[in-house]
Amino acid sequence: MATKLATASHMDIEAGAVAGLRVGIVGCGYWGPKLARNFSGLPGSQLEMLCDLREDRLAEIGKLYPLAATTERYEDLLNGNLDAVAIAAPVAMHYPLAKAALMSGKHVLIEKPITARADQARELISIAEERDLTLMVGHTFVYNPAVEAVRRIVQSGELGRIYYLNSTRVNLGLLQPDINVIWDLAPHDLSILLYVLGTEPVSVSAHGAAFVNTSRDLPEVAYLVMRFGDGAIANLRLSWLDPVKKRNTVVVGSKKMLVYDDLADNKVVIFDKGVDVPPYSVTEDEFRASYRHGAETAIPIEWVEPLHVECAHFIECIRTGRVPRSSGDAGLRIVQVLETAQRSLMNGGVELKIEY
Amino acid sequence: MATKLATASHMDIEAGAVAGLRVGIVGCGYWGPKLARNFSGLPGSQLEMLCDLREDRLAEIGKLYPLAATTERYEDLLNGNLDAVAIAAPVAMHYPLAKAALMSGKHVLIEKPITARADQARELISIAEERDLTLMVGHTFVYNPAVEAVRRIVQSGELGRIYYLNSTRVNLGLLQPDINVIWDLAPHDLSILLYVLGTEPVSVSAHGAAFVNTSRDLPEVAYLVMRFGDGAIANLRLSWLDPVKKRNTVVVGSKKMLVYDDLADNKVVIFDKGVDVPPYSVTEDEFRASYRHGAETAIPIEWVEPLHVECAHFIECIRTGRVPRSSGDAGLRIVQVLETAQRSLMNGGVELKIEY
Amino acid sequence: MATKLATASHMDIEAGAVAGLRVGIVGCGYWGPKLARNFSGLPGSQLEMLCDLREDRLAEIGKLYPLAATTERYEDLLNGNLDAVAIAAPVAMHYPLAKAALMSGKHVLIEKPITARADQARELISIAEERDLTLMVGHTFVYNPAVEAVRRIVQSGELGRIYYLNSTRVNLGLLQPDINVIWDLAPHDLSILLYVLGTEPVSVSAHGAAFVNTSRDLPEVAYLVMRFGDGAIANLRLSWLDPVKKRNTVVVGSKKMLVYDDLADNKVVIFDKGVDVPPYSVTEDEFRASYRHGAETAIPIEWVEPLHVECAHFIECIRTGRVPRSSGDAGLRIVQVLETAQRSLMNGGVELKIEY
Amino acid sequence: MATKLATASHMDIEAGAVAGLRVGIVGCGYWGPKLARNFSGLPGSQLEMLCDLREDRLAEIGKLYPLAATTERYEDLLNGNLDAVAIAAPVAMHYPLAKAALMSGKHVLIEKPITARADQARELISIAEERDLTLMVGHTFVYNPAVEAVRRIVQSGELGRIYYLNSTRVNLGLLQPDINVIWDLAPHDLSILLYVLGTEPVSVSAHGAAFVNTSRDLPEVAYLVMRFGDGAIANLRLSWLDPVKKRNTVVVGSKKMLVYDDLADNKVVIFDKGVDVPPYSVTEDEFRASYRHGAETAIPIEWVEPLHVECAHFIECIRTGRVPRSSGDAGLRIVQVLETAQRSLMNGGVELKIEY
Repeated sequence: MATKLATASHMDIEAGAVAGLRVGIVGCGYWGPKLARNFSGLPGSQLEMLCDLREDRLAEIGKLYPLAATTERYEDLLNGNLDAVAIAAPVAMHYPLAKAALMSGKHVLIEKPITARADQARELISIAEERDLTLMVGHTFVYNPAVEAVRRIVQSGELGRIYYLNSTRVNLGLLQPDINVIWDLAPHDLSILLYVLGTEPVSVSAHGAAFVNTSRDLPEVAYLVMRFGDGAIANLRLSWLDPVKKRNTVVVGSKKMLVYDDLADNKVVIFDKGVDVPPYSVTEDEFRASYRHGAETAIPIEWVEPLHVECAHFIECIRTGRVPRSSGDAGLRIVQVLETAQRSLMNGGVELKIEY
Repeated sequence: MATKLATASHMDIEAGAVAGLRVGIVGCGYWGPKLARNFSGLPGSQLEMLCDLREDRLAEIGKLYPLAATTERYEDLLNGNLDAVAIAAPVAMHYPLAKAALMSGKHVLIEKPITARADQARELISIAEERDLTLMVGHTFVYNPAVEAVRRIVQSGELGRIYYLNSTRVNLGLLQPDINVIWDLAPHDLSILLYVLGTEPVSVSAHGAAFVNTSRDLPEVAYLVMRFGDGAIANLRLSWLDPVKKRNTVVVGSKKMLVYDDLADNKVVIFDKGVDVPPYSVTEDEFRASYRHGAETAIPIEWVEPLHVECAHFIECIRTGRVPRSSGDAGLRIVQVLETAQRSLMNGGVELKIEY
Repeated sequence: MATKLATASHMDIEAGAVAGLRVGIVGCGYWGPKLARNFSGLPGSQLEMLCDLREDRLAEIGKLYPLAATTERYEDLLNGNLDAVAIAAPVAMHYPLAKAALMSGKHVLIEKPITARADQARELISIAEERDLTLMVGHTFVYNPAVEAVRRIVQSGELGRIYYLNSTRVNLGLLQPDINVIWDLAPHDLSILLYVLGTEPVSVSAHGAAFVNTSRDLPEVAYLVMRFGDGAIANLRLSWLDPVKKRNTVVVGSKKMLVYDDLADNKVVIFDKGVDVPPYSVTEDEFRASYRHGAETAIPIEWVEPLHVECAHFIECIRTGRVPRSSGDAGLRIVQVLETAQRSLMNGGVELKIEY
Repeated sequence: MATKLATASHMDIEAGAVAGLRVGIVGCGYWGPKLARNFSGLPGSQLEMLCDLREDRLAEIGKLYPLAATTERYEDLLNGNLDAVAIAAPVAMHYPLAKAALMSGKHVLIEKPITARADQARELISIAEERDLTLMVGHTFVYNPAVEAVRRIVQSGELGRIYYLNSTRVNLGLLQPDINVIWDLAPHDLSILLYVLGTEPVSVSAHGAAFVNTSRDLPEVAYLVMRFGDGAIANLRLSWLDPVKKRNTVVVGSKKMLVYDDLADNKVVIFDKGVDVPPYSVTEDEFRASYRHGAETAIPIEWVEPLHVECAHFIECIRTGRVPRSSGDAGLRIVQVLETAQRSLMNGGVELKIEY
């Protein structure tokens, strides 16, 4: 098989300049096959190689992509005639795999979070800059058309000043053996919050607890409170143990409110609701809040698979040199929030300033 | 006919001692009329007097209860031939009104929270004890048949060990001019949690913010995290500013999970779901969580108005001397949690031990 | 206090002519008490008398309205000093009770359907006309603010030409021993359809079946299809045996669509959706329908109890001589649809022209 | 390309006996690519050839399956070294395409409805029998695990005697230029009803109307009522013009009820609800229906893609000679219902006996 495929890919590689950028994927667990499907379907890319330590996973995935080579050795990707590498491996492996790929001249797409530590992210960013390579992190949600709509609405000022955001991301499943629920799930909400607001939190407080896999003390349920420079706050509820899957964000502004529910048919709904308080209500008697209960409007969203947009954006950034929407820097900021949340978690939930 | 009716009502009034306990209500705002409706409809009680400072409110409510007297002076209640007084006034007034009623020998039902300070609650409790009077706080939710069902299920052990509870109580509306959102809404969830679990939290952490009525710095949005002695945690989301009304509690146990949604048709649903982890998963590779996704069962709830049950319970406790389910002590414990949450709120959300 | 109250009620009764129209209610089953609550609470009316054959029901309801007399004899209502009678008795009794009330000079409000036969309705209408009395039928839904909103939207042309309407009115419960499900539930939907569209169907087809109470052959489940003069159609699903309560109407127009769901938080939602077909698509290849999937907008509805509006409207029509929105004529038209549906049901569901 | 692929497929074809049955697909519109994805992913089959008249569609789909040959000429499929042909072409083409495939010795899977006329289906069935070939129709829903669960529950007797079924299948979209909404959507519901009940209706009545594409008079909205031999009835609501997508079936039995909602998270819910009537209620007064409102239980469904099960079943039936669950006969029965419904539609919705 190796021979046949080597030949097959050789033919393709010669046609590469025309046919598309050559992409290899490392990690064929849950996410890798999704990357494979997208890169193989994009006009601008060719899926050239799949790498995983588990022979059976490789065989299974390889059958679906007969034109892609498979390998258990990462060196084959590094030495192969590839333009880019997509990394869908455990978080602890992000840094070494990405560094090696960048050092061998490959553009790199890393699953979120970009690295397990901020200093690692900084190093990858500077290697990519030195070598003029695209470094991108897979914050899929910033490529989600519903999140795009939320950002557009918030940035347009339609909601007024943003008071607070509540995010819920809970489900029963996929307890991770190596990272806690904050590192697993919060990157999604953080990437949404930062993208939608266009700014990052100044402080974070985190509470959590482990119940099932108590030998490791990796919280399976966690709550985060963040504060932003303008007084806005954000609250995250994260759990691997909830009975009903939920993925939503409520955005409350001074003029209107919005609910983004990733699992609903109507993913983005604007509520023309609010509270008005007379300007000079000094005494309790003067205080008379008046409530507006206007129309609710579900915004039509033209659905496209976010990962498809993400992969196409990666290819386009490589071709044009453009800075990705989910750049290494964006990935770094989120790791900085996560690290601070982790310290808060270890210190009784005390609110900590985030150093960027 | 006029004659007949005049006679009939006269008879009733004279037969008061037999026909039912004589109840007076102070405060005819939002909650008072609900108390009036229930006490006037109960076989064991007579609505005798309504008291409010606002003449127009009195006239309006008085028309609905032609057999009840109305007054703007609280002394009329204290001096009237009443057995019990129900207090539906602003929180700051709970203590003086209740104390005066107890001192004049009346049984007392006070809206939640029982008082604005723990020491006030302690004083009311001891006056009531000395005088052998019933003192009860209006934790309506502990008389809610859905909450009863949740308590029964949790206490039966069907859910296994309780891991955590998430409560959400949000809505657009009724910003209070005198208390913050924690004092306004958390008593509901706290009374549910304490009743369902049969124990109280050992610590609490609170975060919050005010956006609309900023002149007073009374948080309109707040988040609480509580920890219980056995390792369980509870999280509360409270808001006066959310676009969609929500009142629900998720209870996650080691064997099963439960959702209590007070606004759903199916108020209590048990999820036969869970995660099992093999006992000796020392290494990551050994770790393989297995998930159970069994049936969801909506528990049929025979609906009765909780306030009706509460008022009937108050009457029964007066008659029998029984300790109310929502006793002065229960009210005190919740004020102790609230006071501690308030201190945490003022100290950057730091987790504080609750002194009972 | 006793003295004061006796005096107060005496005053009210003497001031009756000024204080409000004197209303008596016959039938204290399910609906009568609701009428009693509303007429007793309206500024323009006084609840004077309650009539029912069952002594226990009378006693129970009478306790809630101490100022109203109670009687088991309908003559007491006819002979009493009443201005109007509201009839909430079994359908077969509507005609004799209403006729007697009109003949004794009372204005009459009858629960839907107005009578069991069209000729009976015609007779009531002509008696009321002769004597210049208000005759109104309790089509409660035409006083529902959500239905008002639907009518306003449809009549404004915002939905374009109306293509079709689908109504569903199903529930588990309240099998009637004397009438079938069409006569019990369809009056609601028919009154909505006729009010919203401003026109009546030209034909009707009905199918149904009885399963539980088979001794009587009164269909418990039924389906109606109606056609309107302009080509629009309407479909009704009616059942006393469905597991989940539903009350909704979908209105599909050439420009937009609308869902009215009486049980939803958002009762009226407009969908900016539609299909456009190019004008000259003669061949299949030319045919290319294009779909618009625009915003969904929930219309805010200021809620008032429909029965409250209905009762106030009845009082106002009596005072002003105005023709009620749900006049005897409106009631007659619906009985004509029901009679024709009944004939279709008996004849294998054949579509029958409705004679008005 | 032809040469390269011919060679590629030749290699594969020789390995065919080992690798799997060779399948060709005709029709690469909406459904064909789904068949392609499934047959290419099954261990027991190889996707060998794709056929469509449109070169651009072929090129697009062909890129995803580089090992499959593409052709615009159906003869290539007939002459190719294929074991089976799957037909996803317009309904009018089902018969000629299927007949030619069977005549050339191929096993055949046809999309629903099997043919446009019952006599065509009968002919295909007899050709397949003569030649000992598998003939199967793509009633996908009988391979849906939720429908399987509904059938199992109904057949177990848990619901008691089945009273009636209500199906709703509505959406905005995909108006067909060549068939009406009954022929397009009803096969889904009919295949579900017949499979779940294990019997077929004895009569059918159909009403419908066209609004958008009026030049062709193909109803875009339709209502069917069917009666079964044991007195059960079934109602279908079908529309291409409804604002909100719905796909559900309510099954009401004498003991329990069930809702199958294909779009809900909980696809199958059993309601322990019902009505009991005392056996000898001759008079109205004796009649007292009593209602049971027990628990609602959502049945866990292990999800698999129905089309995957269907394709695997087709392969297995070919290998084993087993009669497919959705056999030619099953397809014929549904065409017989459709033909009768069509006649009813043309005759004012009159109820017609179905000849099988």
